[in-house]
Amino acid sequence: MAAISFELIKKDPGCAARLGSLTTTHGRIETPIFMPVGTQATVKAMTPEELVEVGSQIILANTYHLYLRPGHELVARMGGLHRFMHWDRPMLTDSGGFQVFSLGELRKISEEGVKFRSHIDGSRHFISPEVSIAIQEALGADIAMCFDECPPYPAERSYVQKSLELTTRWARRCKEAHTRPDQALFGIVQGGMHADLRRVSAEQIIDIGFDGYALGGLSVGEEKEVMHGMMQECSDILPEHSPRYIMGIGAPEDLVEAVYNGFDMFDCVMPTRNARNGALFTSFGRINIKAAIYAEDQGPIDPACDCYVCRNYSRAYLRHLYRSQEILASRLNSWHNLHFFLNLMKQVREAIARGEFVKFRQDFYAARTGC
Amino acid sequence: MAAISFELIKKDPGCAARLGSLTTTHGRIETPIFMPVGTQATVKAMTPEELVEVGSQIILANTYHLYLRPGHELVARMGGLHRFMHWDRPMLTDSGGFQVFSLGELRKISEEGVKFRSHIDGSRHFISPEVSIAIQEALGADIAMCFDECPPYPAERSYVQKSLELTTRWARRCKEAHTRPDQALFGIVQGGMHADLRRVSAEQIIDIGFDGYALGGLSVGEEKEVMHGMMQECSDILPEHSPRYIMGIGAPEDLVEAVYNGFDMFDCVMPTRNARNGALFTSFGRINIKAAIYAEDQGPIDPACDCYVCRNYSRAYLRHLYRSQEILASRLNSWHNLHFFLNLMKQVREAIARGEFVKFRQDFYAARTGC
Ligand SMILES: [Zn+2]
Ligand SMILES: [Zn+2]
Repeated sequence: MAAISFELIKKDPGCAARLGSLTTTHGRIETPIFMPVGTQATVKAMTPEELVEVGSQIILANTYHLYLRPGHELVARMGGLHRFMHWDRPMLTDSGGFQVFSLGELRKISEEGVKFRSHIDGSRHFISPEVSIAIQEALGADIAMCFDECPPYPAERSYVQKSLELTTRWARRCKEAHTRPDQALFGIVQGGMHADLRRVSAEQIIDIGFDGYALGGLSVGEEKEVMHGMMQECSDILPEHSPRYIMGIGAPEDLVEAVYNGFDMFDCVMPTRNARNGALFTSFGRINIKAAIYAEDQGPIDPACDCYVCRNYSRAYLRHLYRSQEILASRLNSWHNLHFFLNLMKQVREAIARGEFVKFRQDFYAARTGC
Repeated sequence: MAAISFELIKKDPGCAARLGSLTTTHGRIETPIFMPVGTQATVKAMTPEELVEVGSQIILANTYHLYLRPGHELVARMGGLHRFMHWDRPMLTDSGGFQVFSLGELRKISEEGVKFRSHIDGSRHFISPEVSIAIQEALGADIAMCFDECPPYPAERSYVQKSLELTTRWARRCKEAHTRPDQALFGIVQGGMHADLRRVSAEQIIDIGFDGYALGGLSVGEEKEVMHGMMQECSDILPEHSPRYIMGIGAPEDLVEAVYNGFDMFDCVMPTRNARNGALFTSFGRINIKAAIYAEDQGPIDPACDCYVCRNYSRAYLRHLYRSQEILASRLNSWHNLHFFLNLMKQVREAIARGEFVKFRQDFYAARTGC
């Protein structure tokens, strides 16, 4: 009995977009779905109840951060990550790979794994495929990810090729090491911005066999056109009857393009990080609440939004909170932005259910008049 | 028709504690009551809905801060402070006096008023009794306070005497300037730590006549014994059938002593400020969630507390959030601390209703075993 099951409910007649249902140990998820990121066992500024209110079905936590603090063994002794952070719905942990590779000078890669220094206190650590799986099993999310190497961008083609082969060998070791029957394990396809290498990587990873598949190494600094082009090139390289996840995206337009090309799951810190900087997403584009034009604006962030924030607070008040560096600014901005992302995915699912995703995509771009 | 009415419901048989009901333009308050402080038009880290959930009946906002940012005229154009900050229950504004006098070198006092420089950008400002009342009328709280001079502690007796005379002349000007029929105005009694000067000040302020009376200039650095002694000395100097407010207190024991001596209303930043520093109030004393002993503590902050935080989160998780400098740490800590203060006042009211406040006070001290 697999830890998850994926049902493909409907395919859009005009493009590769698809409606699905993913059943995990902690409940069912409707796809396509966006996963808010809870880096340190909390989606910044939000309670679990608020995450549910804005429409979150599954959240992501970061293995690298939780391994360093408070430590995965402590989390296990506290009853696992779900109980520790008071979230009893589906959860996914990344492998720690992306964060470790982002450390730059602080890490060293070998066949065995990666040596690195903590960004918190400089202490020395080592993560291998086996260690990453052990950490993720201790945290106990519903879905674990393989430990992969994420090449930088730009990178030499030869480096990307060598790197994807290492990712394949590590994926085999991850599958070998993984034992928790109530936890699914997803494989990660690399290959940089080279369509043919992506195909090679996909074949190797699919050959090993996982509960779901992800594209890693996108949104690493490339142009939007390059990213969206890769989505299109990779549209048919992952199995149709498995969940397809693009890691670390994205902006609203990235999500729309990814769905258009047949992907199901996404995660990004953008809604919460931007919120803390005053950048708010709306149906007509992005605004920054700092701007002087909002000083006496009695309207909501987005008149088309029916979230708690837009129902109760004016742009003028939100601007005041932001300028006064109040915690409530981060809270209300995060709340609205997450609602915007999750409501967008709800509208996406409804459009696919109606068989009208192509029209939905056109309308989405047409509405973004301004910023 | 007065803007507020105060009903004295019951007097405790064993001490000066009293149960009352204060009706304002935005609703009724049961006294004794603690008022959470919303310095910049937000009680830090809390939404208005959460303030209601923890039992807040009335909140306080700071005239000085709102005058500087976003400006009282802007708030008035946005429909007043209640609407601006999405709080439709009773509210009180201080006069700005205490904040201005706390500026030290940045301010200069004259008969006319106080010249000062903004702590934000150094710009020059002037607040007089008339200006303070105009600001508070623009903000539109249910209760406004007279602009007073709060002498430093310690201060020469002669300075305190001169100062209270100035406060009386300013109180007369405040009453003269005040025009809003839907807003009450409270007088403030000064006199430092001199019981006889407090009595002189009270006579002068009562003679002018206000909707309620406050003791200012306590909790300014004096020893607990001195503060509690002054409460006792001033226990009978304010009219029985008016609300009696002690400004800027306090710790739980200060509230219990103030109630014991016949006072009805209190405010302090302590529950929220301490929360942001990890200091949590419990029935057995204060704890700091930073402490290593809580690293794997699966219990709640206070087993006797039934707040949202204590029902759902462990000390271990709260310690992790605090060490990780997460916004949720400030949120959950503030939530619990405010619940503790407001629940304490609820228990205080119930004890007075039963005629058992003397016993309640004994039990309160007996429970504080530790810290
Ligand atoms: Zn909204
Ligand atoms: Zn509690």
